[in-house]
Amino acid sequence: MSELLVSGGQVLRPDMTVERADVLVDQEGGEIVGVDDPGAFGADDELDASDGLVIPGLVNAHTHVAMTLFRGYADDKPLDRWLEEDIWPVEAELTAADVRVGAELGLVEMVKSGTTALSDMYFHVPEIADAVEEIGPRAVLGHTAITVGKDDDAARADMERSLEVARELDGAANGRVTTTFQPHSLTTVGEEYLREFVPTAREAGLRVHFHANETTDEVDPIVAEHGVRPLEYADDVGLLGAESFCAHGVHVDGAEIELLAGTGTGVVHCPASNMKLASGMAPVGRYREAGVTVGIGTDGAGSNNDLDMFDEIRDAAMVGKLAADDASAVPAAAAVEMATRGGAELLGFDGGRIAAGAVADLAVLDPDAAHLTPAHDLVSHLAYAARGSDVRHTVCDGQVVMRDRELPGVDERALRDRANERAYDLVARADGGT
Amino acid sequence: MSELLVSGGQVLRPDMTVERADVLVDQEGGEIVGVDDPGAFGADDELDASDGLVIPGLVNAHTHVAMTLFRGYADDKPLDRWLEEDIWPVEAELTAADVRVGAELGLVEMVKSGTTALSDMYFHVPEIADAVEEIGPRAVLGHTAITVGKDDDAARADMERSLEVARELDGAANGRVTTTFQPHSLTTVGEEYLREFVPTAREAGLRVHFHANETTDEVDPIVAEHGVRPLEYADDVGLLGAESFCAHGVHVDGAEIELLAGTGTGVVHCPASNMKLASGMAPVGRYREAGVTVGIGTDGAGSNNDLDMFDEIRDAAMVGKLAADDASAVPAAAAVEMATRGGAELLGFDGGRIAAGAVADLAVLDPDAAHLTPAHDLVSHLAYAARGSDVRHTVCDGQVVMRDRELPGVDERALRDRANERAYDLVARADGGT
Repeated sequence: MSELLVSGGQVLRPDMTVERADVLVDQEGGEIVGVDDPGAFGADDELDASDGLVIPGLVNAHTHVAMTLFRGYADDKPLDRWLEEDIWPVEAELTAADVRVGAELGLVEMVKSGTTALSDMYFHVPEIADAVEEIGPRAVLGHTAITVGKDDDAARADMERSLEVARELDGAANGRVTTTFQPHSLTTVGEEYLREFVPTAREAGLRVHFHANETTDEVDPIVAEHGVRPLEYADDVGLLGAESFCAHGVHVDGAEIELLAGTGTGVVHCPASNMKLASGMAPVGRYREAGVTVGIGTDGAGSNNDLDMFDEIRDAAMVGKLAADDASAVPAAAAVEMATRGGAELLGFDGGRIAAGAVADLAVLDPDAAHLTPAHDLVSHLAYAARGSDVRHTVCDGQVVMRDRELPGVDERALRDRANERAYDLVARADGGT
Repeated sequence: MSELLVSGGQVLRPDMTVERADVLVDQEGGEIVGVDDPGAFGADDELDASDGLVIPGLVNAHTHVAMTLFRGYADDKPLDRWLEEDIWPVEAELTAADVRVGAELGLVEMVKSGTTALSDMYFHVPEIADAVEEIGPRAVLGHTAITVGKDDDAARADMERSLEVARELDGAANGRVTTTFQPHSLTTVGEEYLREFVPTAREAGLRVHFHANETTDEVDPIVAEHGVRPLEYADDVGLLGAESFCAHGVHVDGAEIELLAGTGTGVVHCPASNMKLASGMAPVGRYREAGVTVGIGTDGAGSNNDLDMFDEIRDAAMVGKLAADDASAVPAAAAVEMATRGGAELLGFDGGRIAAGAVADLAVLDPDAAHLTPAHDLVSHLAYAARGSDVRHTVCDGQVVMRDRELPGVDERALRDRANERAYDLVARADGGT
């Protein structure tokens, strides 16, 4: 069995303490074999973590990775205008080849900032799976179905496509890809389609990922039409449950929080996107108190505008305090926990912790920098001072996907050139130029 | 005359457009001589900005730089408990030598993230001036006076000290240091001392820097005691005016905003600190609409926890939208403007712009990175996606203070070691250990 030794570092343990230890990884099984005193293990291959801090790979639990092509394309607009005036017109022009390049770019950015797993919502999903296979992280993918504005045939076809993609791509990229069924949101998928297709997805054992309660514009129509809060409606159509998670959950009342907790439904908090689109502040402290599993997501690069989970951890801790009007809400360790174990739980794998038996997904940071000095508390630094560029190595599924900030086999410069070219061409097409 | 040519880059111009240009710098005068087409200038020395983006050096308009020693020492507490239980006990143990090391560490962090000017509030100010001289940025320094909890002699001595430091250190570090008179805040300096010493400072032509309206705990006692809002009281004791700026300004009413605008008093917005201490959200959009000059500050590393102004620009844009409940509030260019020209205006120098006649303070970023691709809009990237580690070179007052991420003459590793040692020793003393 081929083994990798992550040696010489300090390790963030599941109890959020930090200790000097080596980490032994089974590369074929993609699992952590053990964590022990420095020098306790030998192995075929070694990853030098000297003076480094070994942390679980970060989990970006809600993103649209191919949207890196739209980074900086349109900013400073509310969600509805941003989608209608800018994003949907360019998305209408997106080809499978564009999605492939955008996904590669985003995955490279993620790996370079210590993210080893993502949960993505988009279309042209086979191309995203190919990009995942090439770049190396773990991903939960799915085809996002929308029925509003479509005739019944097209609406049904989109729902079917979501089921089909979830069935077909599960297990791709050597098992690193798993899937979810993805009705886009409670307002963009008609009730009849939810009532028909959600049970089908459940019977097929598929996990479910959807948007909910992001803005008041997503809440008010549901209340008006159904006379109940959106998550009560979601429960009624079968969307809630231990195999489900929703993104955002900004505008929720106490009963909805209890409903999520009671059904075991997870929430992905996207603080940067919620700030940038002025959607509001999710009550993360209250979710956690109620026992809801919370992960953290960057959302797409169009509304963030980067995919650096360290920004997102910091934002989660910061906004959590503002939302609660309490500086002790969402402390550093809670934010780090959401970005690691919380996300892994939502995505459905045993990870987000450096411990024997967990998946071998980790990042090695270099804390030897002015902005991370002094070293009073490394967990505090992870939440409040570290940034993606502090990551030196990234390991996913036992494989070294970045070593000394280089991704083996990836020509980053050529990728950036292709991404720029695709992005400019796309905007020109959307503008009717070509 | 010794000249430096910043060549081969794209330049962010004062109108927030970006164009290919070279920048010629007079090193003795510390001024930009001209900005022209690539190849238009020749010079003795050259700074390679090929493929780089040349921006005005960032201005950190409110910080306590020596507090880097407390980074990560105490988190996740509200302002009053954080100060009383954690910060004041360690500050009581701070020696001049500690402040020197903490300041050096913070200044290195700033230079490495593209900050070329800061406005600092602290004590042991001569040591901070020495650190500024050594590391190379521009700084507006001052001794912060507090009178509450002191007898009259000690209170008067502290106010006198603030005047004296402002007079004596003005022009230090080859003119890069200027000064402000610094009554700490409206609640920590007694009214009689404000009424006596503020006019003295005004007569001496000193600028004034103070904290105001950071939390409701700072507002309510003023209203209770004086029957007016804090900034009305500040105006009454002579604190407002074109030569004054206050930090925070979170809890203000419309009349106070008008008062700041009418008197020409500036505000330093510290979004990260205000989130982390759950102080609230400053109405930055409303300040700007009213014509108040707004700068951006990191506050101290104890409540941030880093001094990276790119985080702060992003936070200002993000929180500005949340506070206004409007995604078009505080757009990218406005956030960049506050962190450059806005801050320079408050600090009292002609900077924050790459143009002939302005001070030669600039940073060169490397936009050739996955997280800054595609290049739809570099101003958007500055606000939402760039981070301090993207800065390749930093120039202040015509001198190269960082070249290819190295600070000439600074042994960073030795400095980090000294800072760790000082910080641990300080905490041990505060805990009564040694």
